[in-house]
Amino acid sequence: MPKIVDHDERRRHIAEAATAVIMRCGFAGLTMREVAAEAGYAHGAIARYFPNKQSLLTAAFLQLTVAANDRIAAGIEDLRGLAALHRMCSEILPYGSVGTASTRVLLAFWDHASEDPGIREINRKNTLRWRGLMHRFLAEAREDGELDPELDVDAAVDRVSVHNAGWQVTAALTPDIAASERIDASLRALLDGFRRRG
Amino acid sequence: MPKIVDHDERRRHIAEAATAVIMRCGFAGLTMREVAAEAGYAHGAIARYFPNKQSLLTAAFLQLTVAANDRIAAGIEDLRGLAALHRMCSEILPYGSVGTASTRVLLAFWDHASEDPGIREINRKNTLRWRGLMHRFLAEAREDGELDPELDVDAAVDRVSVHNAGWQVTAALTPDIAASERIDASLRALLDGFRRRG
Repeated sequence: MPKIVDHDERRRHIAEAATAVIMRCGFAGLTMREVAAEAGYAHGAIARYFPNKQSLLTAAFLQLTVAANDRIAAGIEDLRGLAALHRMCSEILPYGSVGTASTRVLLAFWDHASEDPGIREINRKNTLRWRGLMHRFLAEAREDGELDPELDVDAAVDRVSVHNAGWQVTAALTPDIAASERIDASLRALLDGFRRRG
Repeated sequence: MPKIVDHDERRRHIAEAATAVIMRCGFAGLTMREVAAEAGYAHGAIARYFPNKQSLLTAAFLQLTVAANDRIAAGIEDLRGLAALHRMCSEILPYGSVGTASTRVLLAFWDHASEDPGIREINRKNTLRWRGLMHRFLAEAREDGELDPELDVDAAVDRVSVHNAGWQVTAALTPDIAASERIDASLRALLDGFRRRG
């Protein structure tokens, strides 16, 4: 009886291995050989699923994104409004050494996205998904009377979105500045600025 | 009499040409041939000053940085406090099509910086310079009674810094979101959040 290969499972496993390799060695250090060793597969097995480094980078980006979205979904289950927005951002921001390492995937992916409309579209899809969630939480916060009545929700979504992206860059390039307590303080101050006073 | 060559001037001219090529074609489209054509030099003339693409990218980053620093210095001449900080950020943020095009240099440079400690140091130096200026303007704002007395100035520097970096990423990857009036609104809301109320 022929062995049944679960190709989706293999792809997922290779994507995880590629993520680990980029987090450890950077995109420059990403090789098929290294990914195969990390995954425990024969060298040739990787190229059958991912023909080049770019496709491995995209798979790593999507792997990190799906993991973040799972954490967000689990984290906000019993939350709404600003508490949900705070929790969502906590799951996205680059906390600790794992967060800093994952910015190596992000920065490489963003650079490629800035050069290639197809890859940019993959990034855009996730950006819009996150912005949609931010809108929902701010609409709930408005409903619940949490927000400063003068706050422009669209502008607030822009601010949260650039805040989170900016910390990814900061963690990648000046990790000493991106200490967890400073990211925390920054997130708290940002969201407190949205609140109704007094 | 031998012709006297001003090597500094040549380097500067090539750096400007490299910046123009990356802004037009991306880092992927950067070639010695293209830079030579842009600069009006013979093909071989570029490599004598910049041996590889990476050194051209660094030169382009520094060229944009020096230009921004010149604009900042001129713009803040008669300003201090929050007005100076506002002006400084206006000179850094990616306004319009030129701003969007210049993010192609930035994202490629940041990606390389995230992989190479030597290049990271070049970025860090400018980051610290800008943070120093932000500190100075916020200290002036405090002196002048512009600031919310409870504002933590160090945390505010973090917030301005990540705000600006986040808009660079946004302009590069989702330029439709980075419309000038939205960047304006975001900057105004950020700095207004630092002000003393009432």
